[in-house]
Amino acid sequence: MFSDRFDQLVQALRILPSVGPKSAQRMALHLIMKNREGALGLAYALNEATTHIHECSICHSLTEDEVCNICASSERDEELLCVVESPADVMAIEQSGSFRGKYHVLGGHLSPLDGIGPEEIGIPALIHRLSSGQVKEVILATNATVEGQATAHYLVEATKHLPVQMTRIAQGVPQGGELEYIDSHTLSQAVHNRMRMK
Amino acid sequence: MFSDRFDQLVQALRILPSVGPKSAQRMALHLIMKNREGALGLAYALNEATTHIHECSICHSLTEDEVCNICASSERDEELLCVVESPADVMAIEQSGSFRGKYHVLGGHLSPLDGIGPEEIGIPALIHRLSSGQVKEVILATNATVEGQATAHYLVEATKHLPVQMTRIAQGVPQGGELEYIDSHTLSQAVHNRMRMK
Ligand SMILES: [Zn+2]
Ligand SMILES: [Zn+2]
Repeated sequence: MFSDRFDQLVQALRILPSVGPKSAQRMALHLIMKNREGALGLAYALNEATTHIHECSICHSLTEDEVCNICASSERDEELLCVVESPADVMAIEQSGSFRGKYHVLGGHLSPLDGIGPEEIGIPALIHRLSSGQVKEVILATNATVEGQATAHYLVEATKHLPVQMTRIAQGVPQGGELEYIDSHTLSQAVHNRMRMK
Repeated sequence: MFSDRFDQLVQALRILPSVGPKSAQRMALHLIMKNREGALGLAYALNEATTHIHECSICHSLTEDEVCNICASSERDEELLCVVESPADVMAIEQSGSFRGKYHVLGGHLSPLDGIGPEEIGIPALIHRLSSGQVKEVILATNATVEGQATAHYLVEATKHLPVQMTRIAQGVPQGGELEYIDSHTLSQAVHNRMRMK
């Protein structure tokens, strides 16, 4: 619109998730008209983050160091390991404040049709990690999707020979869920996995 | 969350309009996990745009050159001048494809309580521009807000001595507007400014 570099900025902003052409335009105008200092700060933060953030060598979550904060912490329970698909899942569980153990990030889920087998998501490395005997319970927190379920079941089979307890995060009606709006698969799971109250 | 630079990136993304803490986190994770090249491209585009884009010396819209594309164009009607509050308005009118004249960007509207008088939004410069006699009609396209209306009325008064026609963009029910959802002020304007069809 105004100039090539303006259009290039609009295009560059389109890489952000859920930013369409209209919002990219609005963002570009806002930055140029109202917050050039913020724009330069964002450019700096993007360069810094991209250059310095990489996988943790132990859990495969994200860190700037050799090992992430959680793996390095002596205050986290070494006997409890939560297996998730991605660093986004680590973030979600951490923000729920419900877990004080360590993590293992698979970096995906089994998907044979896409050529993603156990090797591709580092299952041999996870089994090696479990072989040391330090972990007593693995909480399988892969997504509640077909692929996430299949990955969880595969891990139960693959660790049969190890003296480690395998659990799966509960599935059911979400907090605040109104039954009439819950899909029937979730509802039938919730009835099947009902918990005794008395 | 994962590291200082990750948190700094999340903070930096918050300067974007309508990006709250949750979307900033989602954006940061998306960039780091899925599109580092895009993140570097965005950093570059932000630096380039911030450094090279400035006000057009004639119309005060945005450009990388001394004068913007529209001011420099010989295909735009020099006799028609559209007065708007901001470059965003230039963009909106250009995208409507409804105007082939030139623009003048005020950079705001009159707001006496905030100390914004005619000088602050360059009205003397606009009157000087009109004095050359080249412009035959000024289309007042300030916003349909109280301040935008006051600014339009002020301009009509301030140009009384000049042989230039002053018009105001129409106000009424927007395209697709259903009367039951239109505010009563707009509706009474629309009735008052009704147009003859036969
Ligand atoms: Zn780690
Ligand atoms: Zn211009």
